[in-house]
Amino acid sequence: MEVFEAIRGRRSIRNFEDRPVGKEVLQRLIEAGIWAPSGGNAQTWRFIVVTEKHMLNKIKMLSPGLLGDPPAVIVVCQNRKEAERKGGRLGVELVSVMDTAMSAQNIMLAACALDLGTCPIASFHREGIQRLLRLPEEILPHLLISVGYPKGAPNPPERQTEGICFFEEYRG
Amino acid sequence: MEVFEAIRGRRSIRNFEDRPVGKEVLQRLIEAGIWAPSGGNAQTWRFIVVTEKHMLNKIKMLSPGLLGDPPAVIVVCQNRKEAERKGGRLGVELVSVMDTAMSAQNIMLAACALDLGTCPIASFHREGIQRLLRLPEEILPHLLISVGYPKGAPNPPERQTEGICFFEEYRG
Repeated sequence: MEVFEAIRGRRSIRNFEDRPVGKEVLQRLIEAGIWAPSGGNAQTWRFIVVTEKHMLNKIKMLSPGLLGDPPAVIVVCQNRKEAERKGGRLGVELVSVMDTAMSAQNIMLAACALDLGTCPIASFHREGIQRLLRLPEEILPHLLISVGYPKGAPNPPERQTEGICFFEEYRG
Repeated sequence: MEVFEAIRGRRSIRNFEDRPVGKEVLQRLIEAGIWAPSGGNAQTWRFIVVTEKHMLNKIKMLSPGLLGDPPAVIVVCQNRKEAERKGGRLGVELVSVMDTAMSAQNIMLAACALDLGTCPIASFHREGIQRLLRLPEEILPHLLISVGYPKGAPNPPERQTEGICFFEEYRG
């Protein structure tokens, strides 16, 4: 699939077929994720891929933002200690958050190219997910990405184009 | 260009040809940016595209992270007031930062597909850029993206693959 086609064709999917996603496919998504840039090439991201039904159910209970029943959830985390060591306060508070999101966008575009649907989820109980996945204190879950074969294709929400982009100077 | 090719082929470029990037091309990049997902479909991003030489010079002086002489810089901003109104504290502090980064990743992949080089830059003087671009208080510059035709193709930094991805549970 072409880059622009994936960029325009990606939807946030909240309704999934009851059909598993193969491990090799999920590994390809993670590989797409680690090809994102990271501030100072820090690569402090960690990915936990959950496909076991009882764990997915628990993740759902902790995540108001997670809709539908995806057969897989990728939990994108950051090693906070490593991010601080490599990038200081800016690294841990800002840059590593951006690294997570750029990596997630790669994963979601790659998924789109493989006919998978995804949804990024920031609304979840951080401490709950951390405990559930037995993450040590320094591994912070930043974002969940639900992954599965989409049931139906929602229309894209309209994009605002007025007052969004300015050349040379802001005129708000 | 194929999605995976762009994801793997994108490099952070810090050396540019002395050759302008057309306005239509820059507009295509912004269009790619606004097709990113945003938390609660908030779309609180704002993009300032700078191509005037005297402004680029001033941006460089304020941005230790900006290397080389790109013919264009895209300043990805967020409307802080709107982000707070739409998403509360989580929206303004976390989700809008991720929105910026996902949008930036779209821009950088689209640029790669158009044979352009880019580099995301988080190390810059925020208040200085805000003053220089005459941004009102609520418009916060989050990230700079330098854009231009690359001079040379650097080798990609090696990706860490050990201890990065885990299935079902973390084993750090």
